[in-house]
Parts: sequence; structure tokens; C-alpha cells
Amino acid sequence: MAFDFLQIPENEAVWVESAAIHQQMMALLQAVGVPEDHAQITADALAFASLHGVDTHGVGNILGYCGNVENGFYTIPQQMTIVNESETTALLDGGNGLGFVSTHRAMQLSIEKARAYGVGMVTVRNGHHVGMAGYYPMMAVAEDMLGFAMTNATPAARPLNGSQARMGTNPIAFGAPADKERPFMFDMATTTVANGKISLAQRLGVPIPPGWAVTTEGKAITDPPATRNESWAMTPLGNSHEGGGHKGFGLAVMVDILCGVLSGGGFSNQLVTGENMAWTMAVDIARFRPVAEFKAQMDEMIRDLHATPAQKGTSGVKMAGDPEFDTATIRSERGIPLQPAQVEAIRAAAQRLGTKRFI
Amino acid sequence: MAFDFLQIPENEAVWVESAAIHQQMMALLQAVGVPEDHAQITADALAFASLHGVDTHGVGNILGYCGNVENGFYTIPQQMTIVNESETTALLDGGNGLGFVSTHRAMQLSIEKARAYGVGMVTVRNGHHVGMAGYYPMMAVAEDMLGFAMTNATPAARPLNGSQARMGTNPIAFGAPADKERPFMFDMATTTVANGKISLAQRLGVPIPPGWAVTTEGKAITDPPATRNESWAMTPLGNSHEGGGHKGFGLAVMVDILCGVLSGGGFSNQLVTGENMAWTMAVDIARFRPVAEFKAQMDEMIRDLHATPAQKGTSGVKMAGDPEFDTATIRSERGIPLQPAQVEAIRAAAQRLGTKRFI
Repeated sequence: MAFDFLQIPENEAVWVESAAIHQQMMALLQAVGVPEDHAQITADALAFASLHGVDTHGVGNILGYCGNVENGFYTIPQQMTIVNESETTALLDGGNGLGFVSTHRAMQLSIEKARAYGVGMVTVRNGHHVGMAGYYPMMAVAEDMLGFAMTNATPAARPLNGSQARMGTNPIAFGAPADKERPFMFDMATTTVANGKISLAQRLGVPIPPGWAVTTEGKAITDPPATRNESWAMTPLGNSHEGGGHKGFGLAVMVDILCGVLSGGGFSNQLVTGENMAWTMAVDIARFRPVAEFKAQMDEMIRDLHATPAQKGTSGVKMAGDPEFDTATIRSERGIPLQPAQVEAIRAAAQRLGTKRFI
Repeated sequence: MAFDFLQIPENEAVWVESAAIHQQMMALLQAVGVPEDHAQITADALAFASLHGVDTHGVGNILGYCGNVENGFYTIPQQMTIVNESETTALLDGGNGLGFVSTHRAMQLSIEKARAYGVGMVTVRNGHHVGMAGYYPMMAVAEDMLGFAMTNATPAARPLNGSQARMGTNPIAFGAPADKERPFMFDMATTTVANGKISLAQRLGVPIPPGWAVTTEGKAITDPPATRNESWAMTPLGNSHEGGGHKGFGLAVMVDILCGVLSGGGFSNQLVTGENMAWTMAVDIARFRPVAEFKAQMDEMIRDLHATPAQKGTSGVKMAGDPEFDTATIRSERGIPLQPAQVEAIRAAAQRLGTKRFI
């Protein structure tokens, strides 16, 4: 959920049409050797994130992925293999390529298995950054299913009572369809905030609230650090013992077990920077009860929660996904905001790679 | 995870042997008409909770369940029916009986389905209080599976930015086996603390930390309220927007969707006091990779996390389940602590019901 103090100032933003930046990403990815279908999957996920206001996981990162292909950190073209498979499960080897592509394939497989047997669950080893975890459950939601996605990452957060980072931000994403109301689209880092929010605060030169990051002695840091190092760490959701920091830590370990240990790809502290294992699940709602009845009750629940009397001084209760869908409505008209330096860098890369310029 | 200030003072406790209180619970439940096998399931779960230090969900509550049977709120003998079923899924009607019995059956079914097809998932409608949610995943862990359990409940917590309670404490429980190390046994309320901790603080006459409960205007309450009413509410894990309260709220809604909407039994704000819908899942680890390899990597992860340098002034990193397994070691020798008034009430009930006294 967005924080107002972390918005890119409007007067500094360049607004780029979503279709144009999508074409630009396709062109850049193909220019570095990514096959068209894989470029499509990646560009779709990045554009979706930006359109929905998740700028930390959006199109602004495209050159990082292209760079990982060019320098050989990602293996392209990507060969994915199913290591083990049963009616409802698969262990997918992501072929050391784009995390978008392997996680997309994992969710596709999950959906196919859920259609055939009710539930489908896939873990991914040998994978990389998946972007916005909340994108993948929406693939299942589009099929009238429940969708789940998780991914682990290199250490950024300390466990409760630890003085050093051991856990990734290890997000949990979940989606469920409604009828007249918008779907429930939930995507949370198991840390107090996502990693990108601290680096964004640093870029914008604004302080961070106490509790997002701490020193090795557990003292709050409000001046956002420029780099990861051993002098500080992010906090698990809940932060302190009284605040429930053991819960955020426990959720992060659960993500590590499902993504890193079930796949064998490695838990957070076994990963090298840029490695990310993943886990997806799809559940066919119709196996439990008629989809129309499920969706009608979702509408009821969403309306009931929206109708909660607002705490004074707030804009009232928002469901997971509300801010993102609101932003998508605006941005599909107005475009996606990028920082001028990002636009310049993308244009320069297009020129260097000899591909067409779309933005 | 236990808070020292919420321990029953040692000199006030009566220590009761675990086997004796188990026999006493069996006798009481059967005296009010619960069939022996259902009494066994219930007594097992309650004794497990108390043995592991989860006193808010343990044997101290036995008379409440007996009372619900006697006054007809629970239907006994309990007839459970499978409303819908597929290879991997089931919708179970709990027959308006003991929540322990229906959730136990749901996890048994989940395990059977996971053994046959890899994953098993069951939702329960027409159910009641399940006790300690973390008990059920351990049934799967004993079968070398991953286990999950959730349950929803009547409103106790406000959504972020809401001024009234709409969400139950809606816990999430997860378990995974290890080899030499103890299993990962995770069980968290999606509120900042479990409901029982606030009532326990009230009984003990100690203040609660700011952030556990708030007024309708969002101001922290430190004097624990004696009753639920509209003047205050518990908080979602994270509490404030900066603290990630939208995450705790989102997790609570996810639990409501899986337990209340997928089953059709009702989301938190549709339930009457004492109603609780449930959701269980079992996952056969062997479908993904050899169980021995999975367990060895679990050991590695647990040892790595335990070895995190401790934050000064703390006892270092604990895994979910560590405090509970430590307590179980002590209590299987020393017994289970009860407040004198609890022991008296249990003895009086045994006499009134004309059943044998074991404690």
C-alpha cells in the first residue's frame, strides 16, 4: 500500500504511455537475446506492476534485467525442466533464466493441475527475480481460481532478536475473484516494508519511520542507508517482540521453506544476490462450491469491510488491491511516471542496442 | 511466543500431571454425552496445547466446551458430512459440533488426499472453536508432510483505518518436519497478539503494551479491557500504516476467504460468538524431492538461524516452536499449571456430573 511521502514528485515525472513502454521493453529484451514469448511474459508483468503503482517492481527495472542477460548472469535462451511431477505438484528448474518466465510457467502449471485435480502446486529452483509477486495469483483469479505466489531472496532483514540480516523480504501474495467488486489482490513483504521503499526514500532524500530499519543493537534508523551492509538490517513485520516481530519472522521462514527448501534451491541465507526461488499454487473454487456463490459472498464481505466506520482523520478501510486498481484506472489514461534519468537511460540503451525507440 | 509478564505466578499455580488432566477431560466430555473417540480427539488437542505452554488454548477451557454441549449450543453426537469432494479437495460440514473433531477430520482427509494425489485441502463450515490452530499441522508433520491450518472467528480487531472491529484474530498455522532438529511449528494470530493474551493480562492485573488494543479513534489502550465492546478493538499485526497494519489486515482477510467464503460458512462479521470455520492443507514432500534431503536442508536452515549473532540483551533467535517444545520438556516432567480456581471448578463439575475425579 502506497505511502504519500514516497511518491515521485509529480513535477519531476515523465509520463509514458503503458503500451509504448511495453513495446520498448519487448524491443530491449529481444535485442539482448530473449525469445519473443519470454520477452512478452516479462514485459507484461513489469507493465502490470507499473500500471498498478508498484513502481519499485515495475518498468524502471528493465535495464537491470537486460544487464543480467548481457553479462551472462541469466542464461538465455532459458531452458526450463520439470525435475519431478505428480498429478498436483511439480518441481520446476527455472534454467537460471528470467524469474518472470519461470514463475509464470509455474503458475500456468499450477492452474492446469488445479483444473484437472482441484489443486496445483509448483516450486521453482534455479530462479531469479520474479518482480511483483502479486501478479501471478491474478493469473489464477482470471480462471476463477484462488492464486498464491511466494518468493524468497537474499538476506535483508534480521530475525527477531538477531543482530544481523538472515531473511529475505520473502513476500506472500494471494488473489481471489469477486463478482461486481474488484478481486482481492494481496501482496506483502514479510518485512515491515518492502526493500524498495527504503531505497526509494534514500533516492528521494526523505526520512523513514522508526521501525523499518534497525542497527545491530536494534535501535531504529530513520536516515535511510544507501547500501546494504552489516551495520543495519530491515525488520520482520511486527518489528519488536511486543509488536509481533516473531510473526513476521515466522512468515518469512514459511516462505523460505516453501520456496527454498521444498524446491531445494536454497533458503535466503544460501542464495547469492539476484537468486530467488519461488512457489505457486492454484485452487479450483468450483470443487468446493459453485463459483457464483463464492463470488457473491466475496462481494458481501468486501462491501461489509468497506462500510466499516472510518477512523477519524483517515480515508477509511481499503481492501488489498484497492489502491492498486485505483492507480491503474488513472495510469491507463495518463501513463506511467518515470524519473527523467530512467527515461534517458532506457533511450540510451535502445540506441546502444540498435533497437527502435518507443518512448 | 510467550511473554514473561503474562505468566501465571508460579506460587499461585497448581501443577497437574498431563495424563491425569487428560483422563479428567475424557471423563467430563463423555459425561456430557460426547462419544469416546470425539472426546479423545478433543482431550488430545487441549492437553497438547497446555503441555506446550499455550495455556490460553488449553485444558483450562474444558468446562467451556462441556457447557456448550450441555446447553445445546454444540450438537452432540456430532454428525459430519462431506458436502463436496474431489481427488484433492473436500468441503466438510462440521455438524455444529466440537471444532476440534471437525478440524481433526479435515486434516485427516487432507493427509489422505495428499498421500494419494500430492496435496489435500479441506474447508469446514458449521464449525466451532478449534483450540490451538498449530496442533493440526503437526498431524501432517508426523506423516512427513507440510501441514497448514487456519480458522476464522467473530470480530475482535479493526481493519486498518477502521474504527470498529470487523475481523477475527484469524490465526495461520504451519508446520514442517526437520531431521535432527525439532520441527518448525508456527502458529500466529493475524492480530498483533492473540485475544487470550489481553484477557490474561486483565485477569493478572498487568498493563498491556501500546499497540495491542486501540480506541475507536486509534489511540493506544494500555489498561486491558474486561469485556469486548464497541469502545475499543484489537489491532491487525503491524498496527499502524507505517508498521504494516494493512498486512495483518490482509492476512486476516485471506484467512476469512479460505475458511469462511470457500466453505460458505461465513466470514468473521457473519459469525455468531462461538462459530469458527476452518481450513486445512497437507502437502506430500516426497512428490517434490526425497524427504531425507528436505529434512537435512531444514536442519541446515534451523542451525543457521539459531547461529545468528544475538541482539545484545536478548536470548537470541528462536524458531517458531522452540519456546513451546522447551515448555513441553519441562511440563512433561512437572505437569501443567492451572489456577486454583480452575482446578476447583473442574473438580466441582466432575462431582456434579457424577464422574470420576482424576485431579
